[in-house]
Amino acid sequence: MVDTQVKEIKEDELSEIGISDNQIAGIVEAIDEGDKKAINIALEALDAVDTAVLLEKIGTEGRKALLEHHSHQFDGDVFVEIDSDLRKKILESLAPQKVAEYMAELDSDDALDLLQNLDPVFQKEILKKLSGRDREAIEEGLTFPEESAGRLMQREFVAIPEFWTVGKTIDYLREAADSLPEDFADIFVITPTYHVAGEIPLNRILRSQREQKISNLVLDKITPIPALMDQEDVTRIFRREGYSSAPVIDDNERLIGVITMDDIIHVMHEEAEEDILRMGGVDRGDLYSAVLETARTRFSWLAINLVTAIAASVVIGLFEATLEQVVALAILLPIVASMGGNAGTQTLTVTVRALATKAISSSNAMRMIGKEVIVGFINGFIFAVIMGLIAWVWFGNPILGAVIAAAMVINMIIAGLFGICIPLALDRLKIDPALASTVFLTTMTDVIGFFAFLGLAAWLLV
Amino acid sequence: MVDTQVKEIKEDELSEIGISDNQIAGIVEAIDEGDKKAINIALEALDAVDTAVLLEKIGTEGRKALLEHHSHQFDGDVFVEIDSDLRKKILESLAPQKVAEYMAELDSDDALDLLQNLDPVFQKEILKKLSGRDREAIEEGLTFPEESAGRLMQREFVAIPEFWTVGKTIDYLREAADSLPEDFADIFVITPTYHVAGEIPLNRILRSQREQKISNLVLDKITPIPALMDQEDVTRIFRREGYSSAPVIDDNERLIGVITMDDIIHVMHEEAEEDILRMGGVDRGDLYSAVLETARTRFSWLAINLVTAIAASVVIGLFEATLEQVVALAILLPIVASMGGNAGTQTLTVTVRALATKAISSSNAMRMIGKEVIVGFINGFIFAVIMGLIAWVWFGNPILGAVIAAAMVINMIIAGLFGICIPLALDRLKIDPALASTVFLTTMTDVIGFFAFLGLAAWLLV
Repeated sequence: MVDTQVKEIKEDELSEIGISDNQIAGIVEAIDEGDKKAINIALEALDAVDTAVLLEKIGTEGRKALLEHHSHQFDGDVFVEIDSDLRKKILESLAPQKVAEYMAELDSDDALDLLQNLDPVFQKEILKKLSGRDREAIEEGLTFPEESAGRLMQREFVAIPEFWTVGKTIDYLREAADSLPEDFADIFVITPTYHVAGEIPLNRILRSQREQKISNLVLDKITPIPALMDQEDVTRIFRREGYSSAPVIDDNERLIGVITMDDIIHVMHEEAEEDILRMGGVDRGDLYSAVLETARTRFSWLAINLVTAIAASVVIGLFEATLEQVVALAILLPIVASMGGNAGTQTLTVTVRALATKAISSSNAMRMIGKEVIVGFINGFIFAVIMGLIAWVWFGNPILGAVIAAAMVINMIIAGLFGICIPLALDRLKIDPALASTVFLTTMTDVIGFFAFLGLAAWLLV
Repeated sequence: MVDTQVKEIKEDELSEIGISDNQIAGIVEAIDEGDKKAINIALEALDAVDTAVLLEKIGTEGRKALLEHHSHQFDGDVFVEIDSDLRKKILESLAPQKVAEYMAELDSDDALDLLQNLDPVFQKEILKKLSGRDREAIEEGLTFPEESAGRLMQREFVAIPEFWTVGKTIDYLREAADSLPEDFADIFVITPTYHVAGEIPLNRILRSQREQKISNLVLDKITPIPALMDQEDVTRIFRREGYSSAPVIDDNERLIGVITMDDIIHVMHEEAEEDILRMGGVDRGDLYSAVLETARTRFSWLAINLVTAIAASVVIGLFEATLEQVVALAILLPIVASMGGNAGTQTLTVTVRALATKAISSSNAMRMIGKEVIVGFINGFIFAVIMGLIAWVWFGNPILGAVIAAAMVINMIIAGLFGICIPLALDRLKIDPALASTVFLTTMTDVIGFFAFLGLAAWLLV
């Protein structure tokens, strides 16, 4: 009990880190009252992270008011911190000149991050407003494919030749202090041809004697990341190897940048977010979209679902005569569909996750499919007995009980089988299984469930 | 096109990092043939990460064979790398003495990580087999609540007093080289009472002159993490503040440990995994459970679903007389339920994510609820028109069309309203919204959908 109490207190304290709900409410009030002076004062007191949180939470209307009259009080960092979907929405509502100004305040990597998801036409307009050097750096970054290591990497890193000593390295870092990257935890050791020989964490340099040769220190053998590698694969390598940073190389295997753990955290967060939302049938930016846009983007998913639901209903329609004679079938129909759908979703969820983490591959796919079919059979059998008895008692008809029991076993085996095979097939076709699996699956379980249940009923009951 | 081609090649290369599917197949074959010598040779060639992957992918039977005859070839690191749910299963199948041996090979933090999720009785048996010093460290770690910062932190860190110079710090690091933590990127600056004054990244020490006083360097003001803070909150702070490491303090605000970014990556991965799987109605360890256990753990979720599905069917049963007269209602029923369920799931998914990232709180909850209701109304209205026309044409009955249209609007508004209110309510009751929201939601949309559709039909059609 003591522990719990202490924890409660800490949680309350936590909510005091950063902008509070009260502060946000105050700013909303000031916006409603048109009290620009109060807004000015409030904004001045906020750092970039808190300004980003404010923009995220204040809603479309409040956001519009702030951006219209107070955008000069924001700086580029605010947009680095903001949710990337909301960021796209906000930046595309601004003038290209304004976006270029924000970008000019940032490191080239952060500036690229701001620009890269925007509409291509808008991108070009912004690029025109940038200074020559900034534009060049950004345009070079844009040559790498979206979501590649090249887009993720920082171009600023520290690289030293193998033949230096620890002392020479420290002297170099002191002399070059001002031109070094703002923060770094590892140094790359390179060959004369700019290939990566290894990586040394700074702490290993600090605990070595000055006269030690770098080549005599233990180098971390680190697999360089090709600039074209997909960011999800980069994440997996970081997690697998426990890297804190890794060198990025070009087609000639020359060192061109570095990816650090904070980039990885960012990608992991976005990828997990995307998977969860896609499985739920919503777009990434949903939370920050205005009402009409939200309705519009969700509409397409629901439209697909309507088509599949109608397809399932057509199956029911085939058995209209049977339904007219045994109305109990209509009452029990949703149970068959629902159990199949849920059992299938369980399998589907596990498979989509296993694919995302590469925990399933050709070496174990067949075994997993077998497992799912057997699990489907076992639970199908148990629920068939339960539901068969319930239906018998409910409608006083043992054959009806047998019919729903048989339909349930069939549908839950199908649910297991398709729950794993659909995402596996989509993955092989390079379609994101998180996106499309659910529709296919529920269509299958509905159609087969209705066919099995009503078909058996037409045969045995009527 | 060129880009895509290059990317394909890189992806193929990636699959060659680590153990290949062919290697796994070879080991499986050796197990089947009982060829222990071949297994020995194969295992010797694998590092800890690859051995972990092998154990993850080889299936229950293969795992059993390996653990029975080759567990002496594993070392503690293998279990640090392995999926934590599978780890629990494997370790609990071993003798306490064997687990204690693996733990003795590890740092106290990793050893604690191995032990902490195991069955409490088994934990005690293992602790008895540990040496006095190891046991003390572990038992101290266990005093912190599960999933707290105290469980996450490393006890090894470097802390120096404010009055030292850069030169003295470097000399200290060189002298103490062997007793320092294996890897660190930041040094803590502490007051004489062991309170945290700030943090210095190593690169800032390296680029400063020897005679500089530490107190004159720019210290990173870093919010110390209370040891009792929940790990999810710790993750949020790291992401918010962009920390690479952060000090952990006890109740007296004294420095007791450090949390680093790799701990955070680990937590983020596990939490995202948990959310996705829970929303799909499966347990964390599902992927690695044997057939019977998988069937058993999934059973409970399906059982709850059966109860709610029967409840919805009872509602249909109330309108038996209506269904007997208009069999078209039975055909259209699943469409009403399915559209409501899917629209509700969209809202639910966004809300569960927003709660997990604290993007929704009291300052914007009311506005979000309003938005969901309006979105539900807009899409409900559009689909009502579409489906109303389809039903009219299909069954040649305009009133039937009007009935399904009205039911659809009602059900999709309800879906939006409950899709957001259910997770918000569960969150306030401290129940994980990812876990329980779906059941409540589909029950609501089914029951209300059926009531609206059949009730209106009974009133207008019969």
